[in-house]
Amino acid sequence: MKLTLRELAEKLGCRLIGNNSITVTSVSSLESARSDSLIFVEALEHLDAALRSAAAAIIAGEFASATSSKPVLISAHPRLAFARAARLFRDPAGNRTIHPSAIVPASAKFGKNVSVGPGAIIGDNVKLGDETTVGPGSVIGDKTIIGSDCRIDSNVTIYPGTTLGDRVIVQAGAVLGSEGFGYVRDAETGRHERSPQIGRLVIENDVEIGANSTIDRGALDETCIRQGTKIDNLVHIGHNVQIGENVIIAAQTGLSGSVTIEDNVIMGGQVGIGDHARVGEGAMLGGQCGILPKKILRGKGIIFWGTPARPLREYLKELAFLSRSAKKER
Amino acid sequence: MKLTLRELAEKLGCRLIGNNSITVTSVSSLESARSDSLIFVEALEHLDAALRSAAAAIIAGEFASATSSKPVLISAHPRLAFARAARLFRDPAGNRTIHPSAIVPASAKFGKNVSVGPGAIIGDNVKLGDETTVGPGSVIGDKTIIGSDCRIDSNVTIYPGTTLGDRVIVQAGAVLGSEGFGYVRDAETGRHERSPQIGRLVIENDVEIGANSTIDRGALDETCIRQGTKIDNLVHIGHNVQIGENVIIAAQTGLSGSVTIEDNVIMGGQVGIGDHARVGEGAMLGGQCGILPKKILRGKGIIFWGTPARPLREYLKELAFLSRSAKKER
Amino acid sequence: MKLTLRELAEKLGCRLIGNNSITVTSVSSLESARSDSLIFVEALEHLDAALRSAAAAIIAGEFASATSSKPVLISAHPRLAFARAARLFRDPAGNRTIHPSAIVPASAKFGKNVSVGPGAIIGDNVKLGDETTVGPGSVIGDKTIIGSDCRIDSNVTIYPGTTLGDRVIVQAGAVLGSEGFGYVRDAETGRHERSPQIGRLVIENDVEIGANSTIDRGALDETCIRQGTKIDNLVHIGHNVQIGENVIIAAQTGLSGSVTIEDNVIMGGQVGIGDHARVGEGAMLGGQCGILPKKILRGKGIIFWGTPARPLREYLKELAFLSRSAKKER
Repeated sequence: MKLTLRELAEKLGCRLIGNNSITVTSVSSLESARSDSLIFVEALEHLDAALRSAAAAIIAGEFASATSSKPVLISAHPRLAFARAARLFRDPAGNRTIHPSAIVPASAKFGKNVSVGPGAIIGDNVKLGDETTVGPGSVIGDKTIIGSDCRIDSNVTIYPGTTLGDRVIVQAGAVLGSEGFGYVRDAETGRHERSPQIGRLVIENDVEIGANSTIDRGALDETCIRQGTKIDNLVHIGHNVQIGENVIIAAQTGLSGSVTIEDNVIMGGQVGIGDHARVGEGAMLGGQCGILPKKILRGKGIIFWGTPARPLREYLKELAFLSRSAKKER
Repeated sequence: MKLTLRELAEKLGCRLIGNNSITVTSVSSLESARSDSLIFVEALEHLDAALRSAAAAIIAGEFASATSSKPVLISAHPRLAFARAARLFRDPAGNRTIHPSAIVPASAKFGKNVSVGPGAIIGDNVKLGDETTVGPGSVIGDKTIIGSDCRIDSNVTIYPGTTLGDRVIVQAGAVLGSEGFGYVRDAETGRHERSPQIGRLVIENDVEIGANSTIDRGALDETCIRQGTKIDNLVHIGHNVQIGENVIIAAQTGLSGSVTIEDNVIMGGQVGIGDHARVGEGAMLGGQCGILPKKILRGKGIIFWGTPARPLREYLKELAFLSRSAKKER
Repeated sequence: MKLTLRELAEKLGCRLIGNNSITVTSVSSLESARSDSLIFVEALEHLDAALRSAAAAIIAGEFASATSSKPVLISAHPRLAFARAARLFRDPAGNRTIHPSAIVPASAKFGKNVSVGPGAIIGDNVKLGDETTVGPGSVIGDKTIIGSDCRIDSNVTIYPGTTLGDRVIVQAGAVLGSEGFGYVRDAETGRHERSPQIGRLVIENDVEIGANSTIDRGALDETCIRQGTKIDNLVHIGHNVQIGENVIIAAQTGLSGSVTIEDNVIMGGQVGIGDHARVGEGAMLGGQCGILPKKILRGKGIIFWGTPARPLREYLKELAFLSRSAKKER
């Protein structure tokens, strides 16, 4: 992919300063920039280094409008414009084919330009939308419905009956729709009897799921992840969990069964949330914090930390008190 | 599967109130009940909603014996009876075949009705018991012995020489029998030399293992998981660990090498246990708690929490003291 | 493999006491020793049990030089000598072949004695060095370069463009080179736009990676793991992370994006490190401890614990103060 700076400025809604016919073929960091690279700078202090780099052009904020030694694309949100530029340069998907070693039953219904990698296994009555790719070794269970422009990477398992919207990305090794962890103890024998785990998993548009994460199906009804939510690697999401829109969940966080996460919540890594807890809209959970079962935590824009999670200010005071007191003692 | 209420009452040991010839075909939640669904209610406060649902019949406690608008199956343990009912309605396993794309050497010994999915790879001298299924893309190492009625889902890896009992369930992506994390530091070079990891992994009857969990083989002897123990997703179990019967281990918990867990222990999610620690029979470990290496923790029926784990009452007092003190300061 | 004690003593640099023509075929624990096993003892208190075992010979420290009932290999570092002995007895790799069900394109370049298991999928322009094995069901992305004597186990995914040195071990289900977790929020729509994740992952010689661990590629440049570093199961390593030489990372630890870990750091399990933090050479991080984003932690040989991580002594004092104070209150 090759774009002139004029084309780029137009597509990104930036103001161009400099030669508009220069062509760019990729985004890069300052360090690895080549003569056809586009880089970005968010702060004035890094502008000099950017100008000294080999890059063809720079996306930057208004602070760079006086520069002259390199073409600059001025944006109110340089990082966002850069992310969008990266998408423009992304390699077109490779050859769109159903590899002969893939198992595809006659009952499968594929849209246009679907790609299925070597050794992938498609179940009965699976639907894949236009331009969707399934990577090598992935297993798509019976009656799974996947929308268009989705990317299912390698060695992914999707259990039967799962539904994915459009533009969903599932990285390698993730497991979607597994059976939840629900047992009833038989008091007479001490044995644990498996509760029914026969519900479904529904994942909406633009959700992204990291490598080796696991998301359980509902026990009787649905586990549901609403549109735009992004999930990192090795995250666990239990049965019946409801996650709102545009939620961010960092790596190794775990959500127990029947947890509700409202829209725009941001969670650090290794957060743990007990069953039936609810996290209100726009709350922020610091890394490793823990929320007790059934707890309802509300506070748009408030950062919570510690186990049990409390407002960051409160928790920092407690830490400071503890440190001072312990030092005083001896 | 279709059962009359009379048949159900008999199989579940319930007392039936109402028309015993009504037929039921599945279990469901109140919300998604249809006219041939069986639901359950544990508390009087939910009985009205259950009676208003579309369900054909309700499993409930003695409190529901006066009801009349719907047939009721009275049980001393409604949730347990419901779990058992769910099992009765479970779909019979699909077509039991060895898929032509699976790799099965002549040395493999299979019982009756064994099923091996597409792309599964069976090692030399593997034994699979009657009715056992191996899902698509799973890899069963040489000399592995798996009992009857087991369910190995997709993309599972079982390392050579592992033994599984009967009715074991292994969900997608789990890894059994991997090599443990043991190194000896060479003081002269600062390099870490791998300790031998040549033992085995033994998993007994009725153990269930969640998606993407990992269980290491013994270093020289065995890692062993006794019957009836249930393990959630993304759990790590190190080399030489000994886990007793009917233990519950929630998601993302990690057990370091040579840990011993006695019977009937219950662990929340994200618990961490240091090497050579022991958790006594029937202890309960709250989510995210941590147990130090070599620690012996005893207390049947006692809940432990925090890091290092201490009795819940004690820990709550500490939290309360800390909160009060920090507030007093300013 | 069969070695006389004389041969063993020579290869391991031990002093032999006893019959030097006795042959040994394997290492084992005391408990499972047979008449051709080699065992080891580190402390005098276990020597009697070792002498009573069925083993052919014992590796032990100087304290065992007076013994007579069994041959003893005296070493200054018995555990290290035992680890090296185990390597001598290791089974030679199985039949070195490219399984006919593996997918290997014409563009792949393989060294001598390369082995590719059933159902493995090799991308375009992949290079595999001499004696390297790729296990069943693993997926090696385009342009990946893997050195010699590497062992890639089953169902591993390596994303395109990743580089591995020599003698690298990757256990089952691990994912290398996945796309990192980087988004830019669009303030107008509230949606998260994916930042480019187009860098590489470089893994040097003698690195070992546990089952189901995930390591992301760099966003624009490299994620890099230097030689001799050992990584346990279910570990997460984010984009742009730099890990030094001979680092030890126990299970379920997570490193956020752009973290730097210097040489010889040792981390317990379930440690969490915030983005852009740095851990100085030789520091030791206790299990479950947490390090805040951007924090720089220095202290060769110092143990840190708690969240936020502080020197162990300090943290223990705080815990003791808290316990005492809470008890005093009532």
